[in-house]
Amino acid sequence: MDRRERRPRRESPDDSREDNGTVYLEGRNAVTEALRAGRPLDKVFIARGDTDGALARIAAMARDAGTVVVQADRRRLDEMSVTGAHQGVIAAAAVKEYCTVEDILNTARERGEEPFIVICDEISDPNNMGAIIRSAEGAGAHGVIIPKRRSAGLTAVVAKTSAGAVEFMNVARVPNVTAAIKDLKKAGVWIYGMAAEGSRGLWETDLTGPAAIVIGSEGDGMSKLVRENCDFLISIPMAGRISSLNASASAAIVMYETVRQRGLGK
Amino acid sequence: MDRRERRPRRESPDDSREDNGTVYLEGRNAVTEALRAGRPLDKVFIARGDTDGALARIAAMARDAGTVVVQADRRRLDEMSVTGAHQGVIAAAAVKEYCTVEDILNTARERGEEPFIVICDEISDPNNMGAIIRSAEGAGAHGVIIPKRRSAGLTAVVAKTSAGAVEFMNVARVPNVTAAIKDLKKAGVWIYGMAAEGSRGLWETDLTGPAAIVIGSEGDGMSKLVRENCDFLISIPMAGRISSLNASASAAIVMYETVRQRGLGK
Repeated sequence: MDRRERRPRRESPDDSREDNGTVYLEGRNAVTEALRAGRPLDKVFIARGDTDGALARIAAMARDAGTVVVQADRRRLDEMSVTGAHQGVIAAAAVKEYCTVEDILNTARERGEEPFIVICDEISDPNNMGAIIRSAEGAGAHGVIIPKRRSAGLTAVVAKTSAGAVEFMNVARVPNVTAAIKDLKKAGVWIYGMAAEGSRGLWETDLTGPAAIVIGSEGDGMSKLVRENCDFLISIPMAGRISSLNASASAAIVMYETVRQRGLGK
Repeated sequence: MDRRERRPRRESPDDSREDNGTVYLEGRNAVTEALRAGRPLDKVFIARGDTDGALARIAAMARDAGTVVVQADRRRLDEMSVTGAHQGVIAAAAVKEYCTVEDILNTARERGEEPFIVICDEISDPNNMGAIIRSAEGAGAHGVIIPKRRSAGLTAVVAKTSAGAVEFMNVARVPNVTAAIKDLKKAGVWIYGMAAEGSRGLWETDLTGPAAIVIGSEGDGMSKLVRENCDFLISIPMAGRISSLNASASAAIVMYETVRQRGLGK
């Protein structure tokens, strides 16, 4: 009878996230990080009869936060699960809202740091998207920009792969990546596109100023228009015979080179 | 009637790779890289009636290499597919053999380089394993060491995620990671374990000497015994609130820091 207890729709991966304003977070990391972030959860479902200490700790955290904890059969959790890997815990929460590009720039201003932004140009694999958001959070980036179309959104799979990092990361969903890039340029941000044929080596590139790094899609890289709007095209050296790395691996390497150059990890 | 035309068994992901000595490579990158590497293929199945130029090019490459090309219905390819993403092409090949740790050290010697080795301690996710092998190939590492148990092997999914890099990379499968580490130490290789609580920052660590980098499992990191046998525990700085990165993202960052320090990308 409670709207929040309904099962999520399953029509497509992108439908997994929202169910009339409710999102289901799955897995121990995702739920723990949501609780740690102080995110209000409507309800936490925990596998019944599980003697695992980790689940008991999550239940205790949830109760401390004033959240209703429901003991559920594993079969029910399996039915609710969209990712297929709930690890004994699923939480129902209000949908996390996307922010704006301006919010991302404001976060940089508030921290007194040069903007450090990641733009995902048509990353369709939710595992890559989740890993990129996780690396961005770890590297201290101010936000991730994704397009509305042809991109993984903030689905349950992305939340899980991100190990909960979506809870802490600004994610802006824009109608048009090229327009967002132009706005960033007006705000003084330099645009660095990752491209196999990029003329500039990663380690010869100064990433200490206001920077937005564009990661292209898994198959085709950046779209033509986006590429043309980059200030620099950077390539990661390939010592072997394959021509490119996984999108989330490339993203991690560039983000942490930015961290290294800015001395943020000291 | 031909043994090689039988469908791969489907009991478990790890069964996907081998079918009485035959492995099925799926997807355009994996098959193209196998052909480029000069790997003998028994047969290449191409989706019939596909007007896609990429598939025609793969068929032509296969014929040039003396491989039988079979036009097949998409439905048949779907049935054969283990990864669920064959992109219109599946190749049957002899199982790629694992190498030994000694082979890896020999590769370093032949290239006149300090050993640069990646050890995967119980990486069970085939997507992570494939991405790590892909990054290792891109970074010019001499080999990847994986344990026989509790680890993804060289399955079709790993081959596909690696974008064909398994074709070019030495992969040694050892009964015992700790014993392999001890052998490497005897050969003068330093062992660097990636650990969230590592005392040494990534950028303060000299990776220019003979080095093996240990990546722990997605959930629990390195096993206790492996950790105790590391010479150094390195941590990647985490600027945000989550405590760790995806295993393949961590691996990519450390491998490319090694490339940067060794000046291999210049």
